[in-house]
Amino acid sequence: MNSNNHLVIMAGGIGSRFWPMSSEERPKQFLDILGCGRTLIQLTLDRFAGMVPTENVWVVTGERYAEITREQLPDVPPENILAEPCRRNTAPCICYVSWKIKKRNPMANIVVTPADHIVTDTAGFRTAVGEAMEFTAETDAIVTLGIKPTRPETGYGYIKADLAFSSSRKKNIYRVDAFKEKPDLKTAEEYVSEPNYLWNSGIFVWSVATIINAFRVYQPTMNKGFERLLKKMDTPEEKAAIDALYGDCENISVDYAIMEKAEEVFVRPADVGWSDLGTWGSLLTHLQRDGHGNALVGKDIAVFDTQNCIIHTAGNQKVVVQGLDGYIVAEKDGVLMVCKLSEEQRISLFH
Amino acid sequence: MNSNNHLVIMAGGIGSRFWPMSSEERPKQFLDILGCGRTLIQLTLDRFAGMVPTENVWVVTGERYAEITREQLPDVPPENILAEPCRRNTAPCICYVSWKIKKRNPMANIVVTPADHIVTDTAGFRTAVGEAMEFTAETDAIVTLGIKPTRPETGYGYIKADLAFSSSRKKNIYRVDAFKEKPDLKTAEEYVSEPNYLWNSGIFVWSVATIINAFRVYQPTMNKGFERLLKKMDTPEEKAAIDALYGDCENISVDYAIMEKAEEVFVRPADVGWSDLGTWGSLLTHLQRDGHGNALVGKDIAVFDTQNCIIHTAGNQKVVVQGLDGYIVAEKDGVLMVCKLSEEQRISLFH
Repeated sequence: MNSNNHLVIMAGGIGSRFWPMSSEERPKQFLDILGCGRTLIQLTLDRFAGMVPTENVWVVTGERYAEITREQLPDVPPENILAEPCRRNTAPCICYVSWKIKKRNPMANIVVTPADHIVTDTAGFRTAVGEAMEFTAETDAIVTLGIKPTRPETGYGYIKADLAFSSSRKKNIYRVDAFKEKPDLKTAEEYVSEPNYLWNSGIFVWSVATIINAFRVYQPTMNKGFERLLKKMDTPEEKAAIDALYGDCENISVDYAIMEKAEEVFVRPADVGWSDLGTWGSLLTHLQRDGHGNALVGKDIAVFDTQNCIIHTAGNQKVVVQGLDGYIVAEKDGVLMVCKLSEEQRISLFH
Repeated sequence: MNSNNHLVIMAGGIGSRFWPMSSEERPKQFLDILGCGRTLIQLTLDRFAGMVPTENVWVVTGERYAEITREQLPDVPPENILAEPCRRNTAPCICYVSWKIKKRNPMANIVVTPADHIVTDTAGFRTAVGEAMEFTAETDAIVTLGIKPTRPETGYGYIKADLAFSSSRKKNIYRVDAFKEKPDLKTAEEYVSEPNYLWNSGIFVWSVATIINAFRVYQPTMNKGFERLLKKMDTPEEKAAIDALYGDCENISVDYAIMEKAEEVFVRPADVGWSDLGTWGSLLTHLQRDGHGNALVGKDIAVFDTQNCIIHTAGNQKVVVQGLDGYIVAEKDGVLMVCKLSEEQRISLFH
């Protein structure tokens, strides 16, 4: 295990599309969404077991989630759990943690991942991340994991890879031609029909030197804000300084802030059963289903004449469903939702 | 108020078709099914207010429901709440309470009603019952309330009235030609098309002398069983004697045991917004509906693209429903059911 390897878990999302399972009080990364006994953030950490020393694991999350993060990831040093005073998308989050890591180890090599994704082929995933990290340890490359599309998904950004131009060092790592925003269906269908379009997983690999340099070039104001706090980091003054700075940071994703502008950007294609679990529908594809296409997560669920439904309960709720096709039925803590899977984009309006 | 008037409320049902709102622990007569602040048994008693002295109100119910009956009907004398040691349909229940009443007042005139029906035209109902009681006070007639059918219901028994033969004493009271069992749909449609077929409401009026005499003639064994206990009634020995007798009684309805056999049987037609609330569907017709035909009973229910649904929750459950048409969504005490209204006859198989 390379002691320069660091893992950053971004855990600030509020999971509004998974209501009522997920709530602002406890977003989906802190829930056992799959019904497997581990929460998504725990599964995320599990996925990197042995690749990164525990003392090099960082979590950036909202202030209100710091306590639950410490509870769910007891092995992560509490001082590595960074609390954002407000939500500011991924660029400020990554800039902040990168400076923290740089202060501790300027040679650090980093993989950044959201806390609420899942991966079913963990071995393939670890191979892909490992190759990317070997690559970024030796270069000033920025590498994204690119997922081979399985459907014309309009909810993801796409990466156009130059498959003719693989890295001389790593044959599975290709130069990125362009990042593409979430497409409409027709465009997504075109993308899927071509071999060089990949989903942007939001999982990044870079050395701390590379990413700090990229912030310095492409986000100089944001970067200076955090650089100026360097001396206060790891002191009692850090919190007040971050509280003062964070709200002023631009609310921007690292994709817009850095990736689309940077030059040495690469992609490692990966076919690893990845999902961002952004929707109930995507969860459905990752749960075991009965012979009628139903995924039932809960202690006491019975279905009759029911197909293609996801029924998800927490606690000891007993559920009987008759005559539904293509619905979500979810119950948690006194909140019940019934919604067509095809209409689930409206869920965030329900609460 | 005639001091000979007695009211018998039959409250032994277990309401299995209203699961999960209704359960064997607390059947529907003890629930505020309409969401109006009064339970069905309370509404039943309310309906007779001023017609019967409180000390003449009797309730026959299962042993396990005696306590809740006392709680919900605190004005009914506890000694008038008779506990059945086992379920034996309506004939033993009526035979038992009739002997209790006869012992107290041989001149008693009785109206018998289930505890879980509803009536929306209370004034019309009271007029109908009042006329029937005046009639039975002067005659040895057995009178049933007959409900004018509004649909070809296959779940009710029917009464064929002889409309040409009204009582000389009461012009609204007609001789019964025949009792008809629950018909198939085609037969029900024929019944509804004729003016002289009425639903059998299960609400009966008779003098205690008449009904005891009818038991003596048509159910001599059952009648003797209770007659023999006359001396033990209202003594500490009553309970043990009833416990010993009740299980041996035939499990038979008063309709089969008496009504279909007796001769002086009359019907008082009534168009009083009656329902036996036997099903969720019948409840739906009695609840206020929104502009899309939904009836929502609960504290915090929101619907989107939803019509012709009944959504019923107890307690503080929050419910959001999207995209359902013609369903029951019911939640109570950690049990959730979703079922097509058209399939609700299967509910009793769900639990």
